[in-house]
Amino acid sequence: MTLLRRGDRVALVSPAGPALPSRVAAGAEVLRSWGLEVATPVVEPWALPYLAGSDEARAAEFVDAWCSDVAAVFCVRGGYGCLRMTDLVPWKDLPPRVFVGSSDVTVLHAELGAVGQPTVFGPMPGTADFVDDPVAQARLRAVLFDGVSSWTAGTPVVPGAARGVLVGGNTALLAASVGGPRWERPADGAIALLEDVGEEPYRLDRILTQLVRAGWFEPVAGIVLGSWTGCGDVSDVLADRLSGLGVPILGDFGFGHCAGSWSLPLGVAAALDVDARTLTVV
Amino acid sequence: MTLLRRGDRVALVSPAGPALPSRVAAGAEVLRSWGLEVATPVVEPWALPYLAGSDEARAAEFVDAWCSDVAAVFCVRGGYGCLRMTDLVPWKDLPPRVFVGSSDVTVLHAELGAVGQPTVFGPMPGTADFVDDPVAQARLRAVLFDGVSSWTAGTPVVPGAARGVLVGGNTALLAASVGGPRWERPADGAIALLEDVGEEPYRLDRILTQLVRAGWFEPVAGIVLGSWTGCGDVSDVLADRLSGLGVPILGDFGFGHCAGSWSLPLGVAAALDVDARTLTVV
Repeated sequence: MTLLRRGDRVALVSPAGPALPSRVAAGAEVLRSWGLEVATPVVEPWALPYLAGSDEARAAEFVDAWCSDVAAVFCVRGGYGCLRMTDLVPWKDLPPRVFVGSSDVTVLHAELGAVGQPTVFGPMPGTADFVDDPVAQARLRAVLFDGVSSWTAGTPVVPGAARGVLVGGNTALLAASVGGPRWERPADGAIALLEDVGEEPYRLDRILTQLVRAGWFEPVAGIVLGSWTGCGDVSDVLADRLSGLGVPILGDFGFGHCAGSWSLPLGVAAALDVDARTLTVV
Repeated sequence: MTLLRRGDRVALVSPAGPALPSRVAAGAEVLRSWGLEVATPVVEPWALPYLAGSDEARAAEFVDAWCSDVAAVFCVRGGYGCLRMTDLVPWKDLPPRVFVGSSDVTVLHAELGAVGQPTVFGPMPGTADFVDDPVAQARLRAVLFDGVSSWTAGTPVVPGAARGVLVGGNTALLAASVGGPRWERPADGAIALLEDVGEEPYRLDRILTQLVRAGWFEPVAGIVLGSWTGCGDVSDVLADRLSGLGVPILGDFGFGHCAGSWSLPLGVAAALDVDARTLTVV
């Protein structure tokens, strides 16, 4: 993945829910403090209040930003909405860009992964998880500017090691994408990053069960678990649905909706070593 | 669909979540007051507390009950779990039975519909929606014993009329079924019954968007909306996702998780007339 440098232009976009303008402004200031020139979102409020704008406006903003003279595109917030605008984006025609987002933006990571664009799953500049969290900021900056590509964290769940392309993100959106126009299982030997927020154990079970029944896990060679904020105690359901897959699992790795979350690449080959608690881009 | 008669034997089963034993007992008493002989569930509590028993135990109970000398099988409760046991049921080999359930049991209705077995989407004897609701009880009894096959209710949303096989149920489970081993779109010209409980507008949007993107609505010729209990104000999201489909829609029809809910057949041909507010088996 290309690194960012001081002086690079970047665009903030709103493909999902609306972010607080004050948060977006604060997040943009952080990015400016890294030496970036920042263009902020342009979509207008719309009838459905959980969307930042109409599907057409969010898609147009995304495509226009992506195709403008920028080095990177940052999503300001998740929430919900990418599933509604993704079919309006000409994925195959997009030039290479650095891309940052997480949560609902999992949908866009999968689309970019399918056309061979690596991305960064990390906290978004219009959210408290970024604006109010200097550690998470520093960890994103280290990936984008310094090329940090190895992480040591977490708790072993199922021992072992695996190599493969990093895929995944928010489980609810991975499940909600099943059956869509371009949906497909990960490539053979993938390493899946999985996290979620606000899904009670029975809901997480339903989500993981949909992915299991759709064959999503069949090519997966290893799993790295992130945060399960507001999900209650999901250890039993994670064990029940994932431990029987016969692949190494590293738990509690610290990405997603948590303090000091790691920013991690998707769409690049990596090595997982559960016993050493390491994930390394190779 | 075959009607029930006094003296018929029926079985209660737990394919999903655990029901309160006192509720199951009360529900069984209601069925006995209809002249039915009632066998109650046999599954044992299991590690995951939102499931009535292990997947294997729930599937075995279901198959054993279905293949025993009974006229009907009633699910005691929904909650969650049918998605986990449905792949363990030999759907094509089941003899004809009257079948009653709703909510999570939507998964089993779809399986039975796919093998040509009509079913009844109605309140379940281990839930308060049945035990504490004499109107809902009487409405289920009228379908099962008297062959009531026409209903007048609701509020027109999109005018028009349609004929087709009744399909659907709980939207979250319809969406969670997408991509499963036997999943397919409804047959051409289907009339979809849709309801849900406890899904906030953005979640309902995600659910309906998954169904739209998977093509589930493509063969649908008409829609009947039930209750949206605990979902907040979903009128805007329903209008946004469904009104553009170009099919007649009858809203607020009164089935699902509501007081005095109608019991409605699935898997049988029916005529929907939105202007007359009628749904009639034909």
